[in-house]
Amino acid sequence: MTADTSTRIDGPRSKRMKVLDAAVDNFGKVGFEHTKWATIADEVGIGQTALYHYFESKVHCLLTIMSTELERSLERAQTAVEELGDHEEILRAAVASAFQVTPREALQARILLSHQDLLVARRTSQQEEVERLRARELVREIEREWAGYLRRGMDAGAFLDRDETVLVRLVLGLLNSVWRWYRPDGPLTLAQISDAVVEGCVRLVK
Amino acid sequence: MTADTSTRIDGPRSKRMKVLDAAVDNFGKVGFEHTKWATIADEVGIGQTALYHYFESKVHCLLTIMSTELERSLERAQTAVEELGDHEEILRAAVASAFQVTPREALQARILLSHQDLLVARRTSQQEEVERLRARELVREIEREWAGYLRRGMDAGAFLDRDETVLVRLVLGLLNSVWRWYRPDGPLTLAQISDAVVEGCVRLVK
Repeated sequence: MTADTSTRIDGPRSKRMKVLDAAVDNFGKVGFEHTKWATIADEVGIGQTALYHYFESKVHCLLTIMSTELERSLERAQTAVEELGDHEEILRAAVASAFQVTPREALQARILLSHQDLLVARRTSQQEEVERLRARELVREIEREWAGYLRRGMDAGAFLDRDETVLVRLVLGLLNSVWRWYRPDGPLTLAQISDAVVEGCVRLVK
Repeated sequence: MTADTSTRIDGPRSKRMKVLDAAVDNFGKVGFEHTKWATIADEVGIGQTALYHYFESKVHCLLTIMSTELERSLERAQTAVEELGDHEEILRAAVASAFQVTPREALQARILLSHQDLLVARRTSQQEEVERLRARELVREIEREWAGYLRRGMDAGAFLDRDETVLVRLVLGLLNSVWRWYRPDGPLTLAQISDAVVEGCVRLVK
């Protein structure tokens, strides 16, 4: 694809992406509650009316950030385990993939974790509800994907045989809990944390 | 203590407790955002002005629910490990204590988990800020308490020697992640989940 077609295809999307990026930065730094729509509009260089063209509300934008992050984390895991055969290697690669992220993606993962209770209750706005349902379906897909890694490892005798529906929640719970306390300026690098969580998850299933 | 003295002592506190209980029930069921102050006042049988006598805002009430739950979980663990000498037994008892809760306490643990990002940023209201700082201090106390269980187990050779500051976060992250998905009407009892998490935590540290 030449730069030209890429611009043509990304053109209408790029402003939307810029809005999402600005929202991630602001929600991540000062929190969703304290972020003003006007700040995001300013940062992207559009008016507030134009902003509503992309997202009908701050919650709609937040839910889109959440479902985008869920989709990315599913794809990251699927790509990481491609062509792997050994069950422990598959688990290690999938867990490690969760931490191979840019600083902004790390922020996005944290936003997802902090607002996950938003996925529980029905939204009255139609656009918000569409995005909420998409996010919920992705949560289920991620659980199915990971339950597959565990179940196949158990069937092959690589992991101890247990109820994989509980185990998958413990593995994902352990992995996601990192985003609550990880800070880019903290004492631990993401690579160090990744190593500790990979070892932890392997020990959990063995 | 006779019923009489109990009433006398609890008297002024009991209405505050009733407000907290009603808030836990409502925040847990319909969410913090969707709960109306008026609903809580109605359930307790007081006016909204009287409600402000106990909590100056919904956030103040939420932060109090969070710090109360943190305090209770610290005390639960400390009581559970009293008189125990074996390091693995201490860890098992501490983890299991997190799940020896009433349905309302389970709801409260879930509210704590869902709103933990509220503890990050300074509050402008003084009463809210006092409660936020109390909650943050309790988070640190809980981490110190559990880091102690792990460090002493490592020093005694019962657990594999590692950086306990990372490990304590993984153990607490695993344990707390349950409140995100546990539902009283779900397929798993709290006792079954407790067993799985106890085993998981022991495997994490060994």
